[in-house]
Amino acid sequence: MKKYAVIVAGGSGQRMGSEVPKQFLLLKGKPLIQYTVQAFLLAYVDMQIILVLPVQQLANGRDIIKKMNAEERVQIIAGGATRFDSVKNGLQLVTPSSIVFVQDGVRCLVSQTLIRSCYEQAVDKGSAVPVVTATDSIRIDEGADHYPIDRNKIRIVQTPQTFQSNVLLTAFEQEYDTTFTDEATVVEAAGNKVFLIEGEYNNLKITRPIDLFIAEKLLEMNIHRP
Amino acid sequence: MKKYAVIVAGGSGQRMGSEVPKQFLLLKGKPLIQYTVQAFLLAYVDMQIILVLPVQQLANGRDIIKKMNAEERVQIIAGGATRFDSVKNGLQLVTPSSIVFVQDGVRCLVSQTLIRSCYEQAVDKGSAVPVVTATDSIRIDEGADHYPIDRNKIRIVQTPQTFQSNVLLTAFEQEYDTTFTDEATVVEAAGNKVFLIEGEYNNLKITRPIDLFIAEKLLEMNIHRP
Repeated sequence: MKKYAVIVAGGSGQRMGSEVPKQFLLLKGKPLIQYTVQAFLLAYVDMQIILVLPVQQLANGRDIIKKMNAEERVQIIAGGATRFDSVKNGLQLVTPSSIVFVQDGVRCLVSQTLIRSCYEQAVDKGSAVPVVTATDSIRIDEGADHYPIDRNKIRIVQTPQTFQSNVLLTAFEQEYDTTFTDEATVVEAAGNKVFLIEGEYNNLKITRPIDLFIAEKLLEMNIHRP
Repeated sequence: MKKYAVIVAGGSGQRMGSEVPKQFLLLKGKPLIQYTVQAFLLAYVDMQIILVLPVQQLANGRDIIKKMNAEERVQIIAGGATRFDSVKNGLQLVTPSSIVFVQDGVRCLVSQTLIRSCYEQAVDKGSAVPVVTATDSIRIDEGADHYPIDRNKIRIVQTPQTFQSNVLLTAFEQEYDTTFTDEATVVEAAGNKVFLIEGEYNNLKITRPIDLFIAEKLLEMNIHRP
């Protein structure tokens, strides 16, 4: 089945304390986003990439893709004000009867194994949303009160969130709602059940400066070779 | 007010894939547990440490404390089968009308600032349990069904969990229950309200091999100088 990876990299990187948007920060001399794109290019020969970037970063993105000699397989499109808008823009380029991966641009250590598992489950069940279990004690804070919850029930959600295109395209025709924090919530709001899949603890989202060092160390440890 | 830190280091370190219990793994040439003990020794001159170790590691612990020249301020006691039992053993050495910090032995980057904030709140309100807010999308998985929860309501619980001694000592007279995952849950089960406090993202629990590298990098970045 035809495969698309919508890689969403619209962030401004405020938490990194850096002028460079975090998706362009260098990891062992290469921009973060290059690792993410490369992981999906390598996973399947018929994978097409849709890279969603802030409008001011389109030229920058084109340079990177050109240096990767990946222009034939990567299309670049401008994002919107929210993640929902950015993904929706990316979905314009998706053709029907395909599998669509939606990936955080800054989750640059995603493994080939996880991409393939997500694909297979999405073909089979319609969706695959990778999650890992919490390793700390967790509480729910309702403001006036707070209480413990069994950490074995807590799932930390990752990407690629993977769907059959008909499910995802229909769901993104809805009006935006503030409860849409990821693609799973959009697809559920459209009345679909979403299926989870085991994620990976090393499938790190680069959010704070220390995360760059962690990613570098994981690459050195050869845990991932994107 | 008199201060005790019960440092719980009873773990066997299975997740580290190492023969050495994780609290004794080396971080920049020194055992992890040494950093944790040192942080509490430095925080207050009248802080007394109660170090709870597996029975096979008591001699090892004594060696470390001797090398630190900290024998006068650190008592070592054997732990039990569960964290509850280990803390309970440690509490035998606590005197009344004091403030008690209960600290994960492998949370070796705890800052002076956090220890002091916890102390002040515990004096004022009776307890201080440090928490940080989740940065990922979170779901609750009930087995048959799963659903998203606003991540702003999720609190990841850290240590030192800090209490007035009368509250904590009374709570630990209860029979053990499997819902006792930390000291806050024990104190709540005894009918007390527990007060949260803002924790620190760098107050890392060393659980997996990569965490050692992160801790090393944080020390190099001089974010912490325990």
